[in-house]
Amino acid sequence: MIVDFYFDFLSPFSYLANHRLSKLARDYSFSIRYHSIDLGRVKMAIGNNGPSNRDLKVKLEYLKVDLQRWAEMYQIPLVFPSNFNSRKMNVGLYYPDAVAQASVYVDILFNAIWGEGTAPDSESLPGLVSEKLNWDLVAFERFLNSETATERYEEQTQAAIERKVFGVPTIFLGNEMWWGNDRLFMFERAMKAAF
Amino acid sequence: MIVDFYFDFLSPFSYLANHRLSKLARDYSFSIRYHSIDLGRVKMAIGNNGPSNRDLKVKLEYLKVDLQRWAEMYQIPLVFPSNFNSRKMNVGLYYPDAVAQASVYVDILFNAIWGEGTAPDSESLPGLVSEKLNWDLVAFERFLNSETATERYEEQTQAAIERKVFGVPTIFLGNEMWWGNDRLFMFERAMKAAF
Repeated sequence: MIVDFYFDFLSPFSYLANHRLSKLARDYSFSIRYHSIDLGRVKMAIGNNGPSNRDLKVKLEYLKVDLQRWAEMYQIPLVFPSNFNSRKMNVGLYYPDAVAQASVYVDILFNAIWGEGTAPDSESLPGLVSEKLNWDLVAFERFLNSETATERYEEQTQAAIERKVFGVPTIFLGNEMWWGNDRLFMFERAMKAAF
Repeated sequence: MIVDFYFDFLSPFSYLANHRLSKLARDYSFSIRYHSIDLGRVKMAIGNNGPSNRDLKVKLEYLKVDLQRWAEMYQIPLVFPSNFNSRKMNVGLYYPDAVAQASVYVDILFNAIWGEGTAPDSESLPGLVSEKLNWDLVAFERFLNSETATERYEEQTQAAIERKVFGVPTIFLGNEMWWGNDRLFMFERAMKAAF
């Protein structure tokens, strides 16, 4: 069984969902197909051109409380990074060497960005993943700046839009879709029913 | 113990939350203080001037699936009404005779609007509550159109804004706030811990 997981490294709720989904994958023996996508483009595609939560001070203040409640429940740290420029590391998921190591790539980056608060556009991140995954840093950096990388990222984002993804995290089991870390319990009920 | 419940009759997630919160109130013996508020104003107050979910076709399609999943879990019906003009029945909560009957008033209207799909501005609703609650329909209608009613409603909305409510449903236990029907499980954990 395969579960599609759509996320953007700028999204703290995707960080939470990645943690829980990895555990569920072990418990229920399914594999996760990872899709990093451009959240901004996906929202614009459905006409969702309002201010993002980051720009709504009162709402953001509550969301920070809410995120900490989740992090505490999951027993993981959660630290806000200093910016949300996730494009580069989103693109990196489509590096050919990442195909067989996608879950490790995603874990390393979510932990650095949202577990430790490293800015997603930090110069240190390509080095960190290259070291941990035994990649050639120069080749990886070359990929990150390549047109191929941009094309793959845009294709993935476009495919998500066609599948009616409008936010992240979003997961699919077949044609069933759930949006939000807070809907993983529903997904888990569906998994339980399937077993 | 008292729990504050902020809602707007136009909100299907408030309908779901009202159902679950009523059950929790029985299980944990707390009382609910009801506050109908103007969701549109509360959103504008924090600068949330983007399109509402009702105007985002792709997202609304998913939300309808999501709402039905919740309704099924709660084993209650959920039918979309033909409009979202909730002002009149929101205001009605502040009718003096409603003070002692707030929970019944709220249940009757949520069931009519979201359980059966009655338009919230339907002419039949003031008659329905007056009959069920033994009110004088003429006096109730007079109140609905009074300046006093408008003032009470605006005061309540303003007080919610000052308390940093930015959406509905929202509940408070003391200073702790939870936004969303999907956060009632967290509120329940807090209740359990308090017992």
